[in-house]
Amino acid sequence: MLPKLGSFTFHIDSYVCDFKGKATLPVIGDFILQAATMHASERGFGYETMVKEYTAWVLSRLSIEMYEYPAYDEDIVIETWIEDVSRFFTQRCFRFVNGSQQTIGYARTIWAAIDMTTRRPVDILAWKGEIADYIETERDCPAKKPEKIPAVDGETIHEYTVKYSDIDINRHVNSVKYIEHLVNVFDLEMFKNNDIGTFEIVYLTEGMFGDKLSIYQQARSANEYLMDVKKDGLSVCRSRIVWK
Amino acid sequence: MLPKLGSFTFHIDSYVCDFKGKATLPVIGDFILQAATMHASERGFGYETMVKEYTAWVLSRLSIEMYEYPAYDEDIVIETWIEDVSRFFTQRCFRFVNGSQQTIGYARTIWAAIDMTTRRPVDILAWKGEIADYIETERDCPAKKPEKIPAVDGETIHEYTVKYSDIDINRHVNSVKYIEHLVNVFDLEMFKNNDIGTFEIVYLTEGMFGDKLSIYQQARSANEYLMDVKKDGLSVCRSRIVWK
Repeated sequence: MLPKLGSFTFHIDSYVCDFKGKATLPVIGDFILQAATMHASERGFGYETMVKEYTAWVLSRLSIEMYEYPAYDEDIVIETWIEDVSRFFTQRCFRFVNGSQQTIGYARTIWAAIDMTTRRPVDILAWKGEIADYIETERDCPAKKPEKIPAVDGETIHEYTVKYSDIDINRHVNSVKYIEHLVNVFDLEMFKNNDIGTFEIVYLTEGMFGDKLSIYQQARSANEYLMDVKKDGLSVCRSRIVWK
Repeated sequence: MLPKLGSFTFHIDSYVCDFKGKATLPVIGDFILQAATMHASERGFGYETMVKEYTAWVLSRLSIEMYEYPAYDEDIVIETWIEDVSRFFTQRCFRFVNGSQQTIGYARTIWAAIDMTTRRPVDILAWKGEIADYIETERDCPAKKPEKIPAVDGETIHEYTVKYSDIDINRHVNSVKYIEHLVNVFDLEMFKNNDIGTFEIVYLTEGMFGDKLSIYQQARSANEYLMDVKKDGLSVCRSRIVWK
């Protein structure tokens, strides 16, 4: 049996950096998904195994706490482990470590497994009970469990039609693409003086090619925002962003 | 002295794949830039050296010929070499090789070097004449030299405001982001039945945060399109796309 903890190194090349020379939040999101995929694949419950059994992991919720963003030409190590498995959800945690061995952030994800034919949830414990053998109880993850996020109404601040490059191998809008569209709502001035410290997202339904998505935003304070991405008035995903 | 040829391996993970399970053209463009960056860095004329001397490489033109797109979980090897250096331009070629050692495509890029303070071209031969030592004359690159592309007028088919995630470490719209916006103009039906076989792009001026970009398109035939990305009526970049 492989160790419970997986550890994956990513290099910050210039093409994943923003104008400040730091990796962007969508790129951190992409690394999280890559680390989760590799950890699961190595342990026999990754994409390849799932697809053969007409099952897919679906990211349900994600929360990220970034103390510092990795800079151009740095390496970042992402450690990931399974914190919990129940019938319909599994919780996976992440720690981000920079080249000086400093912890620069944490993340927590909640996943469901769905039957690709019926699109209905699969009983994870009945289907792959051995995942529970990998539960790591010794590690602490300070990123909070992503909770429900209230709806936002009012006027839409951005409208977007889903395009080719939004759609991934699962034939719906890629989870990371929502993060990109959400952070793009903010002005460059905000990024010049601040960083996103806390990011939470709750995925509620799938976005498809050609869907007209509307983004709603509610400022709770000068640095905390609730966001809601809707299709025909119904939430596709909701997010909470806290700047620091 | 390092060999003239550089060879870099990329893995096609699910997050760089489109709905067909193949790497997208923007991702191929990103790999090309990564391979160019690594080849140049290893040989002493990469980003780090440049930035210290207030100089930057600017991609001027790019042409890609794809016979086949790499699929999910495959490795793709990108070989790159310098074909020519003149006072103001250097030409760099690329060959794409899949896991079965088959050539699946070629690309050719033309670069200028600019002084970051004046934004004026730098005399490459006077500045880093040793680049000429790396010219590889033994290899053939079937991707054609990217030529001028005529302007396209008429009605705009897509309008786009430049956002945070478009802007890179050089504080302008990233070269690959234009490719993403250009391919996004096409309907999913086109991608279902066809692949982009030839892609050419000529970069004419810089796009900045908040710029309102308009995309113009002219069909030369059912599978050949000229595209023009304009800002205030002036071309920022032009592209030719041939589907197969």
